[in-house]
Amino acid sequence: MLYQVRNPHGGDIYGKEIALDFSANTNPYGTPQGVLAAIQNTLPQIWQYPDPYCRELVAAISDFEGVPCDYILCGNGAAELIYSYCEAIRPKTAVELAPTFSEYSSGLQRVGAKVKRYRLKAEQRFVLDEDFLPFLEDAKPEVVFLCNPNNPTGVIIDPKRLTDILCHTKRHNIRLFIDECFLDLSACGESLKGHLSDNPQLLILKAFTKSYGMAGVRLGYCMSSDAALLRKMSQTVQPWNVSVVAQAAGVAALKEQDFLVSAKKTIVSEKRWLITQLIHMGFTVCPSDANYLLFQGPVGLHTALQEFGIAIRNCDNYYGLGSGWYRIAVRLHNENERLISAIRSAL
Amino acid sequence: MLYQVRNPHGGDIYGKEIALDFSANTNPYGTPQGVLAAIQNTLPQIWQYPDPYCRELVAAISDFEGVPCDYILCGNGAAELIYSYCEAIRPKTAVELAPTFSEYSSGLQRVGAKVKRYRLKAEQRFVLDEDFLPFLEDAKPEVVFLCNPNNPTGVIIDPKRLTDILCHTKRHNIRLFIDECFLDLSACGESLKGHLSDNPQLLILKAFTKSYGMAGVRLGYCMSSDAALLRKMSQTVQPWNVSVVAQAAGVAALKEQDFLVSAKKTIVSEKRWLITQLIHMGFTVCPSDANYLLFQGPVGLHTALQEFGIAIRNCDNYYGLGSGWYRIAVRLHNENERLISAIRSAL
Repeated sequence: MLYQVRNPHGGDIYGKEIALDFSANTNPYGTPQGVLAAIQNTLPQIWQYPDPYCRELVAAISDFEGVPCDYILCGNGAAELIYSYCEAIRPKTAVELAPTFSEYSSGLQRVGAKVKRYRLKAEQRFVLDEDFLPFLEDAKPEVVFLCNPNNPTGVIIDPKRLTDILCHTKRHNIRLFIDECFLDLSACGESLKGHLSDNPQLLILKAFTKSYGMAGVRLGYCMSSDAALLRKMSQTVQPWNVSVVAQAAGVAALKEQDFLVSAKKTIVSEKRWLITQLIHMGFTVCPSDANYLLFQGPVGLHTALQEFGIAIRNCDNYYGLGSGWYRIAVRLHNENERLISAIRSAL
Repeated sequence: MLYQVRNPHGGDIYGKEIALDFSANTNPYGTPQGVLAAIQNTLPQIWQYPDPYCRELVAAISDFEGVPCDYILCGNGAAELIYSYCEAIRPKTAVELAPTFSEYSSGLQRVGAKVKRYRLKAEQRFVLDEDFLPFLEDAKPEVVFLCNPNNPTGVIIDPKRLTDILCHTKRHNIRLFIDECFLDLSACGESLKGHLSDNPQLLILKAFTKSYGMAGVRLGYCMSSDAALLRKMSQTVQPWNVSVVAQAAGVAALKEQDFLVSAKKTIVSEKRWLITQLIHMGFTVCPSDANYLLFQGPVGLHTALQEFGIAIRNCDNYYGLGSGWYRIAVRLHNENERLISAIRSAL
């Protein structure tokens, strides 16, 4: 459509000849059978409006995360909650990392916030270093956005550094938004959820999208002990934002922990294999803890791979990156082999 | 959840013992088989992100409505588009009817708009009369919200009056938001869609929710020739607001025109039967053109019916109505009989 803004993200495979999509970072195993069955079971109910409070789903998330129901708000995908958060707090100033997921900026700029970016250094493999706290001290923002592990780098924030940042934000009355959407698929890293009660400035974002192969169903949630904030956020969206299908899929997904464990094992070994191959081809590879990899290769590689029916994420539109940076999802071995073989042919 | 605001709408049957729901106005036939089959067919694809532009769905709507693709924007239910519209134009002043669907006010008040209400008169059976244009002339709002047929009254706006309002808004540079979500299930009334090209101030809202029994899937759309407005609206929401499931369901639904025709026939005859019964019991019934009925009965009727496992919409929270006003959906004959018999027992 003429009026639409250009979609800056991966995963838009529609209207293209893409047989293999490495541009979106979802679970390589796809959707668990239990989730598919749960969706099928909703079919006789879809003529009815969804539960506007997602009561059963919130109770299931509360059990799973070990946090009170009153801390939980669900959304039509995690992305909706980013917009809703920005809309609810309407900050004048914000800090985010560069590179990072671009929807924080989109949500922030829509409400007129001034965004300062902390540049992660390629030569340090995009690790969040000790200069971040002085930067924060200096910037004095109303809110900080962090992503753990970071997207597109896959780098986990050092737990000690993260706790220091948490303390700093509490002491200086700064809101801390932390995106843990990829944490459940990561090899290491710890959630800040145990700190929610003592830190009302903290909000944690999570998604079913990636972990349980449900990107097409749209389901995310956030957790915070700031009831006034959650109330405001819930008022920025319409009453029935989470579909009957998504609510049932979410409840079923949380029972699929074996599926998640097994997917994580595959991701660890396949990631190791992919890194070896990419380094062997002379590329710079960022040491990712997540289910995706950032690397630097020849300019135009993404276009060349399209000829092979393969989509990878061109990262030239991320702040802090440029031409030649690419992100790929870690997929199943035969798919990863096809990718590597296509890259070899494309070179 | 403690932080949640109270849901003011019908259809929230969750956690209650409701066997028959007359409080939400969806197609009495439920969801067409073709839509259920289309949803089932999406299951292998739900691990992928949805098309952020809803390309196939927009093309199908364009064919169905006979308007260009560039006029169409889809949303996560029509309700999302109400919020998105208010957010995009952020009007200072607005006019709506009383009573009418409360989400217009919710969307407007969230962006700080001052809402003036044109009171429809019970003694005139809530018909939009000739005093509305002078009221508009006087109020000089930035935007007018109309609902055709109106919710909860079911009254269609006289086509000549509607055209006069359209001309007035064009002449005076007022935006006109017209909600036609129930028009496809109504016995009469005409869409303003033929006027879109010549009236960039006009936006028409439509939903799949009611017509095709898809309330649980969430899918609505709007049509306008104001490309800048649609662009702004699309930026107020996240990139993947319409799920894979909803997009496929929408495409399939538009092929179900026989289903719609047949449902409309049932609605006409069942509505006639319900009106006769309600009048026979001494209630005041509003002559509805839609798939629902507004009537005035004894205070507390909705509570009494809950004992019978039946939900009806208590309308005491609508501006312009009060205790004793109720809205019921027109459902299948055996269900309508159960309702009438329960009302008799409750009296």
